[in-house]
Amino acid sequence: MLSDAALADLRALFGARFSTAAAVLQAHAQSESHAAAPPPWAVVWPEKTAEVSQLAVLSARHGFPLIGWGAGTSLEGHALAPQGGVTVDFTRMDRLLEVRPEDMIAVVQPGITRERLNQELRATGLFFPVDPGANATLGGMASTRASGTTAVRYGTMRDNVLGLEVVLADGAVIRTGSSAPKSSAGYDLTALMVGSEGTLGLITELTLRLHGQPEAVSAAACGFARMAEAVECVIATIQAGLPMARIEFLDEATVAACNAFSGTDLALRPQLLVEFHGSPAGVAEQAERFGEIASGFGAVGFQWARAQEERTRLWAMRHGAYRAILASRPGCRAIVTDVCVPISALAAAVEETRADIAASGIPGPILGHVGDGNFHAILLIREGDAAEAAAAKALAQRMAERALRMGGTITGEHGVGFGKRGLMAAEHGAGWQVMAAVKRALDPEGRMNPGKVVPD
Amino acid sequence: MLSDAALADLRALFGARFSTAAAVLQAHAQSESHAAAPPPWAVVWPEKTAEVSQLAVLSARHGFPLIGWGAGTSLEGHALAPQGGVTVDFTRMDRLLEVRPEDMIAVVQPGITRERLNQELRATGLFFPVDPGANATLGGMASTRASGTTAVRYGTMRDNVLGLEVVLADGAVIRTGSSAPKSSAGYDLTALMVGSEGTLGLITELTLRLHGQPEAVSAAACGFARMAEAVECVIATIQAGLPMARIEFLDEATVAACNAFSGTDLALRPQLLVEFHGSPAGVAEQAERFGEIASGFGAVGFQWARAQEERTRLWAMRHGAYRAILASRPGCRAIVTDVCVPISALAAAVEETRADIAASGIPGPILGHVGDGNFHAILLIREGDAAEAAAAKALAQRMAERALRMGGTITGEHGVGFGKRGLMAAEHGAGWQVMAAVKRALDPEGRMNPGKVVPD
Repeated sequence: MLSDAALADLRALFGARFSTAAAVLQAHAQSESHAAAPPPWAVVWPEKTAEVSQLAVLSARHGFPLIGWGAGTSLEGHALAPQGGVTVDFTRMDRLLEVRPEDMIAVVQPGITRERLNQELRATGLFFPVDPGANATLGGMASTRASGTTAVRYGTMRDNVLGLEVVLADGAVIRTGSSAPKSSAGYDLTALMVGSEGTLGLITELTLRLHGQPEAVSAAACGFARMAEAVECVIATIQAGLPMARIEFLDEATVAACNAFSGTDLALRPQLLVEFHGSPAGVAEQAERFGEIASGFGAVGFQWARAQEERTRLWAMRHGAYRAILASRPGCRAIVTDVCVPISALAAAVEETRADIAASGIPGPILGHVGDGNFHAILLIREGDAAEAAAAKALAQRMAERALRMGGTITGEHGVGFGKRGLMAAEHGAGWQVMAAVKRALDPEGRMNPGKVVPD
Repeated sequence: MLSDAALADLRALFGARFSTAAAVLQAHAQSESHAAAPPPWAVVWPEKTAEVSQLAVLSARHGFPLIGWGAGTSLEGHALAPQGGVTVDFTRMDRLLEVRPEDMIAVVQPGITRERLNQELRATGLFFPVDPGANATLGGMASTRASGTTAVRYGTMRDNVLGLEVVLADGAVIRTGSSAPKSSAGYDLTALMVGSEGTLGLITELTLRLHGQPEAVSAAACGFARMAEAVECVIATIQAGLPMARIEFLDEATVAACNAFSGTDLALRPQLLVEFHGSPAGVAEQAERFGEIASGFGAVGFQWARAQEERTRLWAMRHGAYRAILASRPGCRAIVTDVCVPISALAAAVEETRADIAASGIPGPILGHVGDGNFHAILLIREGDAAEAAAAKALAQRMAERALRMGGTITGEHGVGFGKRGLMAAEHGAGWQVMAAVKRALDPEGRMNPGKVVPD
């Protein structure tokens, strides 16, 4: 709990932007995560880096933890406060600070959402491609090393963050990276901070790599007789070097849920949703070559979406898949889990996961960013049914262990939080202790988002 | 110096693969760097990871430093032993261990050179794209976060190393990353190790991302009236979203040296050398669009190199530029330095650097990987002329400071070593101390490549 002295210092620093109201605390104890934790002790809304730095000094003085908060869309409890502390809500630091079109760079505050960023960029001819589905904040996306549907072409947050401003545990403010496209000047602190989930510091500014809005875009959906053929088609497409902008897999259960929820009429088969970016001629050539490859794997029922509104409908359906699946079993909540495997193991990983889910009796549609070996299961469990919750968690655990056996990783894009911390030793072995050593070096008192990522 | 006990332990571990012969030590005191250091105390040639691990244990027991050695082509003294120690020559750990074509992955030992790797990959239809010019080892390239002519399309070592095996200071062996294309499972130890120049551990195995050999390739050279127009052409090309595989700049002095050395007949103007990769139709379209853009900046004298042997000649000339420039002033040695700036600052950075070099009286041709804002000056100084050496070092220092003023970095691809350590505080501010904290966490006794990258 916060001492009276700590409360007084926080009130003095943040005034009305400090709260311990029960409703506020409760709102910051719920994310889209299945992981549960008690509410934080207080919430603050900083408006500038200097306040975050002063907050870290107060945290050091009074010994309370700091937990960053963006949009509350993380899935493994990253933004919750299992050990208590002060939640740092970045929604008031949400500005696009600068766009440098010549350098294809944007400088943003951590609380801006990806949809707002792209709205503000629209007139520049540039866009920020990383698209995890949820309308997350850029600070949160960097902290979890998010990716999503377009990573197969444009990379993840690892690839699209050029530099950061970070407030460390002692209140020091550092800048990592530069505005140059590359550097070999020492340790890659940008990459160290991206994906560290607020356990090494709080991101207060991001320099992002932008991309040119493609001159031409085309998208399509096509169905396959069996899941294995859809996945083999993905492998062949990637190996052919086709620069796919998106290549997404939906299993039959996901297709059924999406059709019911979004009013689409995709055939009830495993489907691939693809998108091509480039010049008009380039897109036409890519689409033709993909069509040839897909036909070789028995693809049928191509639905092309060339006009903007058709594409919007297609991707709205894809982004609505989570809600569609939730709606398919009323009275349920979802445990959403993700793994990532080498693409050669993708068919086996998905097949074994499907069989495991089927045997469990829990509905668990599968979908994912198969172009980079990443897929999700959305495990639907009855609210309050402890047996189903336990079975779903065991399924997720086996999915992660299966991914490790196949040379993959326990999470391709959701991150660790505290939901997957128990799997970190299995993935990293002695490397997990190296992460712990780095954590101790930067945050010896363990005040930055404690209980996440690294061992206690 | 090594104690008798240390010498005995090293001889017992390495037998004939241990040497203190003066000629051997001397050979490991000379790299392509202008930085000078006394020879190491001994050299060992490990053949497997377990030996490197045992060596680290001996290093801990006897307190001697360990310095990794690949091909000796680094430019800032990375592989030298300014504080003495044992050089770990990886030339006997030079195997391609595994190629997984479906996953587009290769697993290699650190001592394999990039040219041999690509020779061995030839039949697979895949290649490893990072090309720093020198025939460096992959371990060295990862350690310095190397890049080169193709980074504008395929990225740097940061982007093309999926995972590592690393021996830490205490002999522990860790594995970073996985075979999955992406992960958000904790701190990015792969990225932390890439570019750490052997100061955090010794790389004993690399998992590399391969790319499909392009179906079609076309290259060209074209001349411009002035340097500024060549650079503006590069900016326009990048912004147009053309997926250039290479886009290199040579100033007039470099062109003159290359013509004399390689027998080429490029016009004595600032030249751009470009290459396109893709499908036949895609390459044709890219080449046409580049031609249009370049013509808009007054490009003349296009020399197309469509056949393999023509392209080989063009890039052999480019890769021979360093030797060509050295040969242009007999009796000289070179201080080769690199910086990287935001592309919007490139014209000004190159122009100011040229004026600065011209005023110094030292010949200093400029060339570089301008597609990502990275350029080099090759400062030719008379062997043994202390005044010229001092002037050249001052020029390099001003180049780095200029890059920082323009939002860039003191080195785009050469790394820090001890040659540029004095500039690290200027670039990173308090971030340099964060690097030092990470170093202390992983190597508290400072035995891994001491005197490099981080403060003592």
